[in-house]
Amino acid sequence: MARRSLDKLVIFGVGLIGGSFALAVKRAGLAKHVVGVGRSRANMEKALRLGVIDELAEHTAGALRGADLILLALPVGQMRRVMRAIAPYLETHTVVTDAGSTKQDVVAIARECLAVHLKRFVPAHPVAGAELSGVGAASADLFVNKNLVLTPLAQTDKRVLKQVKDLWEACGARVSEMTPRQHDEIFAAVSHLPHLLAYALMDVIASKPNAAKLLNYAASGFRDFTRIAGSSPEMWRDIALANRTTLLNQLSVYQKQLKRIADLIRKSDGAALENIFTRARNARAKWLLDK
Amino acid sequence: MARRSLDKLVIFGVGLIGGSFALAVKRAGLAKHVVGVGRSRANMEKALRLGVIDELAEHTAGALRGADLILLALPVGQMRRVMRAIAPYLETHTVVTDAGSTKQDVVAIARECLAVHLKRFVPAHPVAGAELSGVGAASADLFVNKNLVLTPLAQTDKRVLKQVKDLWEACGARVSEMTPRQHDEIFAAVSHLPHLLAYALMDVIASKPNAAKLLNYAASGFRDFTRIAGSSPEMWRDIALANRTTLLNQLSVYQKQLKRIADLIRKSDGAALENIFTRARNARAKWLLDK
Repeated sequence: MARRSLDKLVIFGVGLIGGSFALAVKRAGLAKHVVGVGRSRANMEKALRLGVIDELAEHTAGALRGADLILLALPVGQMRRVMRAIAPYLETHTVVTDAGSTKQDVVAIARECLAVHLKRFVPAHPVAGAELSGVGAASADLFVNKNLVLTPLAQTDKRVLKQVKDLWEACGARVSEMTPRQHDEIFAAVSHLPHLLAYALMDVIASKPNAAKLLNYAASGFRDFTRIAGSSPEMWRDIALANRTTLLNQLSVYQKQLKRIADLIRKSDGAALENIFTRARNARAKWLLDK
Repeated sequence: MARRSLDKLVIFGVGLIGGSFALAVKRAGLAKHVVGVGRSRANMEKALRLGVIDELAEHTAGALRGADLILLALPVGQMRRVMRAIAPYLETHTVVTDAGSTKQDVVAIARECLAVHLKRFVPAHPVAGAELSGVGAASADLFVNKNLVLTPLAQTDKRVLKQVKDLWEACGARVSEMTPRQHDEIFAAVSHLPHLLAYALMDVIASKPNAAKLLNYAASGFRDFTRIAGSSPEMWRDIALANRTTLLNQLSVYQKQLKRIADLIRKSDGAALENIFTRARNARAKWLLDK
């Protein structure tokens, strides 16, 4: 199906994700004019200079006039403020979508703020983070072969859903659909919890009086384990709070696992330890093969 | 100083570390004849075929006859058995060194098994693991710019210490010295604990009924975080048990940190969470710059 180009695409938050979406959609020839809105003047001017956006919005009303599609690519803690700000200016044809890393909270905020416009809101999560942030890290290739999860509501207009799906597929993403709750459970396990664990270890080590000496002997295993502790603190603070219930459940399961491992070490149960390590290694090897 | 080539180098455990040492020492022209001893016949024949070793030992007595240097590159759980086996055949000039990932236990075993030969034993740890194992992964470049920690004893002969140091430097390693206890505390923090944490997470996820679905959405952050969970289960079982006291202490500190983070999430203390994440990110960024 031939996809119609957007006359006006508006991006709130022109960082790694928002900027990469702008570049990818433009490269696919699917956006004629891209307007950026953001908190950091320096970042926005850089986005303009890099050609990621064509216009830097001066105010919300002007930015949204005639907008075909609005992408909210913000830390989820910003969603309520921004949805409230845009709601009065949404035109009947304007589609709103987001790139938030949690979905139940974003959907709840949309229900609260977007009212009659809810049918034209498509909750989405591009699974393409990186420990880099800011528009300087944006790339038209960021989403190629990456997962993009849509969590449509009962109210979501099917054609609007299709339009957003097509856009992300044009960016190279592998699009799938699930409920907001399924989404938050999956990502608590494979993304939110590991981020917490990496931040926690890095902070424990950095807080020790001999941190410099310890880190002098840290090698590539440590570097890779803590890579995600280089991610945006604000973004991950928001995710931890937004997905709190699910994340605390998963953290509790993990704490039980650590207690179990500590008990095995304490009683020198090498066979049981080796079983855990072997199951883990085999599961990971199978996963890498299947990918 | 010109380094004298070893007439006979004997390696117990010709895997990633033992095999790489053989290749690096040979490339430096510092070993004329390398004999391998190992449990897996298939691995040893591969080592011979790849030219990593020149001879596959049939029995310990023959292997050790005229040996200048013996490297024990084995999981630390094997050290007692092997030190007991070699002790009766050590010649007065033979130097023994090891590549064990823990040092207090290896030193204790050496004190117990090597007796009068203790002065010619140099405890060492090349910090160059990988999640790959076996001689097929060996490389003459493995130790280039990697840390090599020596933990000499009061009894260690200074010339013997120097000889081992020179050999590792010829392999490209950055050699430093510390006590066995300092060594085990440092590596519990930056290596042993992260390995446990990665194995623990991978096993928690693999044990869930929807593991395949979860892993389908796991991305590069998860892949890097769990890379070390691809390491040898036997080796890490041995390390966890050998360094038990220190590791359990560090694990306990980490569990307290997780509890603290869970409490902050529970009471929505975003500022305190963000502080932890920011400290972690900054410490990591500084570390990468300093490296």
